[in-house]
Amino acid sequence: MSMQLSPAIQELIHALRLLPGVGAKTAQRMTFQLLERQREGAMRLAHALTTAVERVGHCEQCRTLTESSICTICANPKRRDSGLLCVVETPADVMAIEQTGQYQGCYFVLMGHLSPLDGIGPEDIGLDVLAQRLHQDGLHEIILATNPTVEGEATAHYIADLARSRGIKTSRIAHGVPVGGELEFVDQATLGHAFSGRKLID
Amino acid sequence: MSMQLSPAIQELIHALRLLPGVGAKTAQRMTFQLLERQREGAMRLAHALTTAVERVGHCEQCRTLTESSICTICANPKRRDSGLLCVVETPADVMAIEQTGQYQGCYFVLMGHLSPLDGIGPEDIGLDVLAQRLHQDGLHEIILATNPTVEGEATAHYIADLARSRGIKTSRIAHGVPVGGELEFVDQATLGHAFSGRKLID
Repeated sequence: MSMQLSPAIQELIHALRLLPGVGAKTAQRMTFQLLERQREGAMRLAHALTTAVERVGHCEQCRTLTESSICTICANPKRRDSGLLCVVETPADVMAIEQTGQYQGCYFVLMGHLSPLDGIGPEDIGLDVLAQRLHQDGLHEIILATNPTVEGEATAHYIADLARSRGIKTSRIAHGVPVGGELEFVDQATLGHAFSGRKLID
Repeated sequence: MSMQLSPAIQELIHALRLLPGVGAKTAQRMTFQLLERQREGAMRLAHALTTAVERVGHCEQCRTLTESSICTICANPKRRDSGLLCVVETPADVMAIEQTGQYQGCYFVLMGHLSPLDGIGPEDIGLDVLAQRLHQDGLHEIILATNPTVEGEATAHYIADLARSRGIKTSRIAHGVPVGGELEFVDQATLGHAFSGRKLID
């Protein structure tokens, strides 16, 4: 970075690099665009950042990001009465599932996954809170929707054991060939899942 | 976007989309990462945005972005005494040229290019200021480094006419095959420039 740039410009470039996927060149382009043409947008972004950091916390029941003490999904009686609890890793997973319109139950958001090597144990992902929730009346199925990665699978197994010990039905979302995908381009592991998880056609 | 998201989260996603190259998915990923893992970073970015918008203006002499009334390059006597003035479109162009370490003169930053269809005329890109500067003692060469686009070339021609009327030597940076590039992948226009601008080998 040239030493000719003003400190305030340099600091903005550095701060933008904190965003995921933003490197030195992109941060510089963003900085110049904001200062040359989008000063109101820059102020709006600054305000949105401050407001979100100040107001957004975690839902007391499902741990997702929300401005209220309890998120809109947990606060919905129809969803609570469904008796379904879907366990996911992140709030983005909740959004992805909500967009399908297929699921009408509640969520539990781990905000991560078990990763002993990084020192992330059961309590760091709220499994003590989840364990208490398994005593809840009317809960009849836990749907495990953690990612199909090594850590996601290990986390799913851990929670399945927990639920089994309380006698609660537990399921894992299906893995297989993506809709619209071509077999030729699907990886071995996925194709293996597609075969082992095959369904009889009536 | 799901209606389940808190207003503060939605507003942050919208505000991040103002950044160049950031679409809906990326803005959402940035938002969740900031709120889940980088709250200090988010506050630092908010502060950097506010500070930059408040402090950064334009250099009175060359129009580049700076916190001072006159930028460090214009304030440098050695550069002023060089008698060279390089005309570029943006502050990013200044940075790119500075990084070569090859140029020791001053700059004039148009902050755009002539574009009659968009209503951008000579005064919008500071050519009235530039015209006054051509009277400056000791100025002996204008180097035109606007982009090799239709608008950039038109702008270069306009400024060349202005400089010619004042009897000041004017040059255009060389266009040709990029160093390290392969002829086979170079476009026709560039290859045409490379031939018409060929140099005799002594």
